[in-house]
Amino acid sequence: MTDDAHERWQRETYEPAVRRVPERKPAFPTESGLEAAPLYGPDGQQTDEERLGYPGEYPFTRGVQPTMYRGRLWTMRQYAGYSTPEDSNARYRFLLSQGQTGLSVAFDLPTQTGYDADHDMARAEIGKVGVPISSLADMEALFDGIPLAEVTTSMTINATAPMLLALYLAVARKQGAPFADIGGTTQNDVLKEYIARGTHIFPPLPSLRLATDMFAYCAAEVPRWNTISISGYHMREAGGTAPQELAFTLANGIAYVQAAVDAGLNVDDFAGRLSFFFASHNNLFEEAAKFRAARRMWAGIMRHRFGAKDPRSWMLRFHTQTAGVTLQAQQPDVNVVRTTVQALAAVLGGTQSLHVNSKDEALGLPTEDSAALALRTQQVLANESGVAETIDPLGGSYYVEHLTDAVEREASAYIERIDAMGGAVAAIEAGFQRGEIEEAAYRHFQLVESGERVIVGVNAFTSEEDERIELQTIPPHAAQRQLDRLARVRNERDSGVSEAALQRLGEAARTPSTNLMPPILECVESYATLGEICSTLRDVFGTFEPPA
Amino acid sequence: MTDDAHERWQRETYEPAVRRVPERKPAFPTESGLEAAPLYGPDGQQTDEERLGYPGEYPFTRGVQPTMYRGRLWTMRQYAGYSTPEDSNARYRFLLSQGQTGLSVAFDLPTQTGYDADHDMARAEIGKVGVPISSLADMEALFDGIPLAEVTTSMTINATAPMLLALYLAVARKQGAPFADIGGTTQNDVLKEYIARGTHIFPPLPSLRLATDMFAYCAAEVPRWNTISISGYHMREAGGTAPQELAFTLANGIAYVQAAVDAGLNVDDFAGRLSFFFASHNNLFEEAAKFRAARRMWAGIMRHRFGAKDPRSWMLRFHTQTAGVTLQAQQPDVNVVRTTVQALAAVLGGTQSLHVNSKDEALGLPTEDSAALALRTQQVLANESGVAETIDPLGGSYYVEHLTDAVEREASAYIERIDAMGGAVAAIEAGFQRGEIEEAAYRHFQLVESGERVIVGVNAFTSEEDERIELQTIPPHAAQRQLDRLARVRNERDSGVSEAALQRLGEAARTPSTNLMPPILECVESYATLGEICSTLRDVFGTFEPPA
Repeated sequence: MTDDAHERWQRETYEPAVRRVPERKPAFPTESGLEAAPLYGPDGQQTDEERLGYPGEYPFTRGVQPTMYRGRLWTMRQYAGYSTPEDSNARYRFLLSQGQTGLSVAFDLPTQTGYDADHDMARAEIGKVGVPISSLADMEALFDGIPLAEVTTSMTINATAPMLLALYLAVARKQGAPFADIGGTTQNDVLKEYIARGTHIFPPLPSLRLATDMFAYCAAEVPRWNTISISGYHMREAGGTAPQELAFTLANGIAYVQAAVDAGLNVDDFAGRLSFFFASHNNLFEEAAKFRAARRMWAGIMRHRFGAKDPRSWMLRFHTQTAGVTLQAQQPDVNVVRTTVQALAAVLGGTQSLHVNSKDEALGLPTEDSAALALRTQQVLANESGVAETIDPLGGSYYVEHLTDAVEREASAYIERIDAMGGAVAAIEAGFQRGEIEEAAYRHFQLVESGERVIVGVNAFTSEEDERIELQTIPPHAAQRQLDRLARVRNERDSGVSEAALQRLGEAARTPSTNLMPPILECVESYATLGEICSTLRDVFGTFEPPA
Repeated sequence: MTDDAHERWQRETYEPAVRRVPERKPAFPTESGLEAAPLYGPDGQQTDEERLGYPGEYPFTRGVQPTMYRGRLWTMRQYAGYSTPEDSNARYRFLLSQGQTGLSVAFDLPTQTGYDADHDMARAEIGKVGVPISSLADMEALFDGIPLAEVTTSMTINATAPMLLALYLAVARKQGAPFADIGGTTQNDVLKEYIARGTHIFPPLPSLRLATDMFAYCAAEVPRWNTISISGYHMREAGGTAPQELAFTLANGIAYVQAAVDAGLNVDDFAGRLSFFFASHNNLFEEAAKFRAARRMWAGIMRHRFGAKDPRSWMLRFHTQTAGVTLQAQQPDVNVVRTTVQALAAVLGGTQSLHVNSKDEALGLPTEDSAALALRTQQVLANESGVAETIDPLGGSYYVEHLTDAVEREASAYIERIDAMGGAVAAIEAGFQRGEIEEAAYRHFQLVESGERVIVGVNAFTSEEDERIELQTIPPHAAQRQLDRLARVRNERDSGVSEAALQRLGEAARTPSTNLMPPILECVESYATLGEICSTLRDVFGTFEPPA
């Protein structure tokens, strides 16, 4: 099938048909605006070894493991946390009983921004969007009866990631689990907070120091821990396109690696524990292509830009969450259709772990039933759809290979622009990524407004009656229960010990060459609170206010 | 990427990995038992013009239309019918108001087997699995306020297909719509009734005569009517594999075409109005491959076996229904995940129209809400998933092309065996297809029993509490309402006219060269009932009893 044959078809069959009956739309862009041609064939495509390679081999386009899901299914890791440590613990135990294979903790806003539950700025937010953690006593309740040596846990925590990791390790130590057996992930990606998510505390440079301190500490002490999950998810949620999500995430990844290298770390000592976190949207093939492009790009960056030698350093491993922003409050059952397509895209793209959103998340917190259905979505894909039975089943598809190249091309162009600006931190400070995302979000908004981009139940196929569904509520005394426990901790701990630990932490923070993880661990084990620890570091590092 | 490179990967990367950590399962068969290799590459694959071709061109592997869904989306055609013509009419109007683009009528068992509602064998079944139709009065109520020149209607009717088509045309005539403007499909595939579904009346040969009479009549009078929908769906529901579904359906297709040719019809005069009906199961890629293989096989059969000259005669156009048999009564919401995957397979396979099952169909009749959700599933795939934006997006995928070839190979071997037995009718009489399907069903049963084949909520990931969902009920006075209208018809019609029409039909039936459609149309327009018409034909043709 040569280019000539394709042209002949276009001229003799396709174009006359379009003259008889025009196509439905003047253009067929993907969600990210990549135009789809009527037909893709092998014309001019070079699916050669360099571009695709083989699973488990550079450049990993077809997957990071040699056996992919034939060896082990992706980890089914539903993000959960609300109300109190006790209520969240009950939800984790429920999900594990339903076949979930990993934990994923959502923290409330005070915990993410380093305030204790009894702080004035915290009270209204206790347990709202995640579990509240102020001290080791909370963390003990959160993992009560869950052996940390036997599960892996992902924690969506950034500015306070070192403290939450320390709390997790302290619980493990109390359970008698050696740090070497502890596996999981801290999101710990502060750079994207400046771009899209907003739960930063300190300015970029001390934030990078905290991140690299975790890289170094875990490389030595917690070798199974994924120290960072460099995240595109929130940029995508903010309205970015797939190539933007990919480019800005990898650019942040470059900044973290550079910071660690600049701090004197050997790239191969920490790069194998870097991980990534992407969104999966509705455009099935664009999303699968994005994941394939991500692997190929990162492998090249690590091998050629940073000179990493260990193949593990070249591998982009990633967690995926279906796209919360695509869920609609109208006709919430339709969200199950969306999350199924999105989850499928993640699996076809070779994700290492997956959260499927619950159908009611546009309305409130997921109920037990809706969370179970989200998990069942993964189980049906894993066990009934057949898509996990061979590696990279889309490989070779003319369209998917075209899209993989197209996403890579757009994302690479962005990375070149960011490099030219002096790297991700400089670009963030100039507001570049945020601006690009805002523009894309505005284009999406216009397309929805005009009806060119159809959203079922929103600007088309609307329903007169609103379906009523049961919503998850937070029990009325949840916040008080938190405040009571915190008061008890403050009362019962040996304040001399915790104050001394906090003082040592402050001294360490003022000494750039000191790794902050050991003093933070000492603080949390003395029952110093999260707020006290962050306050100590705020005094040294200052805080970051975004440019207006 | 040569065979050598693939072998090197297998030896150096894949096999050592499997020695370190064995794969999850000893084998990775598809639902139909086709073994999936760890990886597919371009090795030895010939994706040449002959095998794939171009959309709208022989052999149509990539689609029958030159623009496929860029030109027009598939028809969203939800199968519905229950209780009474009035209740069914209300459901059709509801579905049309929700964006459905075609109608699909389910008939109750008495209607399918040619008994009036007031027959002793009918009473317990009135309106249970579909709408009851005994006379033109019922058909008028069924389509009240629905202009038949403006919708297309599919009717799942076989032994009584000529009568129901005649009733439909009679309603059209009353609406003032010329027959030339009437479009739709009658299933009209009696051969598969002997294999799997069981609602046959007459023996195979007079059944074939009725079918070919419809081909000839519609070619002359109702040119937009798809006279037959040669159906694999029910064989698959009975437990057949994908290649069996394909093979036995195409073999039946061969028998219909041969019967029409033997009856003196010119193949190109009727072949363009043949259509097909397949199931879509959970195995995403196997199903998509099956649809692609079906097009390629049928094109070759029509072109080379029957010498058809018109490209329209070569095109396999098909309706798809998601697989009812995969729906589970346990955790019915999980069925939305299954039907999404199945619907996606149909769309990736290039279906012309689609029914998505409702999540509650394993428990009872679909409610208005569950039927709307099934329609929304199609709308999300059409408008949000991006899969309709380019033609045959899976084309070129090493795995999908391999599966397309594999399904074709297995199905072709079956057709050769059926040819050797003297064709589909002889094979049916020998119980061949039924036996093969039963064996496959038994293998499936064993795999589920042993837990090797996981069904979420059934043999794994079960739930302690049963979710309770609202079920559709049939109003208590529905059957009586039917009986009352039928009594009124018998009372008010001019019996002399209807008896004369029935007598003329009997005479025509005794004259093999007479087309039976005109006398049947005359009967229904005289308000002769379905039962009376079938009784007249039973007297001439006899009935068929399956071999024990």
